[in-house]
Parts: sequence; structure tokens; C-alpha cells
Amino acid sequence: MQKSRIKLHSNVPVILANGIFPKHDMCLDILRNAKILICTDGSANQLNSLPIKPTYIIGDLDSIDKCKTFNSKIIHDKSQDNTDLEKAIEWIYSEGYRDVIILGATGLREDMSLINQFLIFKYFKKINITTVTDHFTISCIKGEKEIDSFENQLVSLIPENRAIVSSKGLKFELEKANISIDGKTISNKSKKNKFKITSSEKLLVFQSHK
Amino acid sequence: MQKSRIKLHSNVPVILANGIFPKHDMCLDILRNAKILICTDGSANQLNSLPIKPTYIIGDLDSIDKCKTFNSKIIHDKSQDNTDLEKAIEWIYSEGYRDVIILGATGLREDMSLINQFLIFKYFKKINITTVTDHFTISCIKGEKEIDSFENQLVSLIPENRAIVSSKGLKFELEKANISIDGKTISNKSKKNKFKITSSEKLLVFQSHK
Repeated sequence: MQKSRIKLHSNVPVILANGIFPKHDMCLDILRNAKILICTDGSANQLNSLPIKPTYIIGDLDSIDKCKTFNSKIIHDKSQDNTDLEKAIEWIYSEGYRDVIILGATGLREDMSLINQFLIFKYFKKINITTVTDHFTISCIKGEKEIDSFENQLVSLIPENRAIVSSKGLKFELEKANISIDGKTISNKSKKNKFKITSSEKLLVFQSHK
Repeated sequence: MQKSRIKLHSNVPVILANGIFPKHDMCLDILRNAKILICTDGSANQLNSLPIKPTYIIGDLDSIDKCKTFNSKIIHDKSQDNTDLEKAIEWIYSEGYRDVIILGATGLREDMSLINQFLIFKYFKKINITTVTDHFTISCIKGEKEIDSFENQLVSLIPENRAIVSSKGLKFELEKANISIDGKTISNKSKKNKFKITSSEKLLVFQSHK
């Protein structure tokens, strides 16, 4: 089985959101090794066939009796102003964590997938969100950052709105490029085991799996 | 089979993009009835098992020999500055069309899904894009618009950045609400067979299928 490139410190909580259930080994590895696993309501149902139990379940749990089955703790937050995923992030933040890994954030409903990716921007100053999907590890940077990679890794860069971006170590280098949310900065490639990005604004970095 | 709610005028071209191949009857209905079907390179491969042939295939067609099999016309555009989907939209626009339906725009690669949804904003003034997925019909509005619907249809509203939005005919009405890309304006519901939206800026309207 492929080893996760994300260091699973015992104190990094994992959220399983209610998008498409992850299939990639890297996601399942993270799921299996999570010390603290938080399910957003219905996502817990998808764990039935696996020997994995959520530590916490958050949401309005009217339709789910799995909390008993799983013996999970329940986090009640009936706010109408945010999604269950955002409730889970807020709860994690309130518990003092400053890093979180999110699985199941994309796929199925496109409205949810879209706002779930924008949550990374929203919480950037408060909590460091890493979203892992079947295709990518998605993180957010601002300023200068050196990022672990591998040769020919697919790298896509998408800003919140616009950004001035430079790169070092990509196949198509950017030199103070004024970029927006379009196709011009997707499907780039890493040349070696590290690349560097400098961005004037918050920028999503998509890195394909090995 | 469920009837498409989108009027398939003979002069509305359909693009099949290279995301997840659509399964919903409404998408397949659109695909079967398209008078002009444009495939973005690899998406043509997915038509193998169906009695459907693309009218045009666009992209760098190095890896695809289906153009011969399908007897499709080839649109050559080797620009590195945009995706195959954007090339297809540009070509349709240059041919004089002002409406297009896009299938297969989401799913699989999240970077592509994200920018494909933002293409609706980018081309708003030039061409009226309707994206149909297995979950939603997605369109873009600005100003005031009355939209066909049905009771309890799921309606999500996501602006390009921010917008002042009012609604008439939704379960949770908006009254000059200052909205952004977050969870506050998703999962609303239509009360009847029409609802009205007024938006100061470009706004994606997601409407679930029947």
C-alpha cells in the first residue's frame, strides 16, 4: 500500500465530509490511522463496511442511529448559518487545533464541492486545512513556500480571486504572473522533489498523488 | 425516461467535457438529442458504447484515433493558454452561437471542476452557458430573472465573489443579503413552479433535477 505523504501527527484531526467516499489508498491510509476522526452527519454511514469508528459525529442527527453503533461522541451545533463541515472545522478550532485534514470534501453535489474548496481560503488565517481527494492533496499558501513534491507531479494553482504568482521548480515557470481562476495555471508539473511558490494572495495548490 | 426541462433547440450546441461521464437520464437525453455535439478530446472515448457520434472533436488529438471511427470533424486549436473546454466554447462563439449546454464539466479532477464552473462567469457577457450534471442544472444570472422550477426543488446560489441578492419564491427568502462563496446560500428550496432572483453581481444558480 502506498504510504501517505502527509505526516499523521497524533494531534492532527481528520474530518470525513459527506462528498464522494474516498477510494484512493492515500485517503484510506489517512482514515485508518486517524487518532481523532470526525464525521459530518451522514458521512458516518459510509464507514459501515470498514473497521473504522468516528471519534465524533457532528450535525443534526435525526436520521442517523449510528452514533450508538459507533459509540461516538456527539457534537451538537444546530446553527442554520453554516454547513456540517464548517461546524466541524469551527469545533476543531475551538478545541485548540490549528491543523486539520479533510477527506470526502468533493464529488457528488457540485455546490458543496465548490464551497468546501473555498472553506480553505475562509479559514486560512485560523486553521491550516489540507484536503485530500482521490486525485489531489489541496492546500492553501500565501507569501513564499517551499513544497515537497516529486518529479512530474501534476501541480495546479488556483487563486481565491486574483494573485501575482512566481514559481521555482515547475515545468512552466511563472514570473510575477497575474493569474485568476481560469485554465492558465492548471496542469503544470514539478521538476524535482521540491518546488517553491510565491503568491501575493491566497492560492490553492493542487498536487497529484504518486 | 424523464424529460429534459431544457429546451433543445436545434441550434443549441452541446459540449461533452472530460469530467465524469454523465449517468442521469436528463444528461443522456440531452446527449442523445444534440444536433451539434462537440467532444473535448478524450471525452469522445467515453461515447464508444453508445449510439452517439460527436459532430466535432476539439483538442490535440495525438492519443485519439476515434475521429476516424466517429467520422467527426476536427477543430484544431493548439493554444497552451486555455483548456479544451474553453477552446470549444471559443469556437462555438466564433461560429455565432450565443447559447451552449455543457455536460461532463465536473467530477474527477477537482482543479478542472472548479475552473469549469468559473468559466460560466468568464463567458457570461459573451455566451449563455448552462452546465448540466448528474445533480444540478447550473446557470448564471445578473440583475433580475424569473426562473422555472418545481415545488421543493433544491436551489443553491453561489456568487463569483460577493453579491447583494434578493429572492421571491424560496423557502428561506433573501432580502438584499450580502452573500459570498460559503454555505449560507446553498440548500434553499423553491416553493412553487417559479422563483425570482435579483443579484447585483454574477451569480451561479444550482437547481436540482426532478
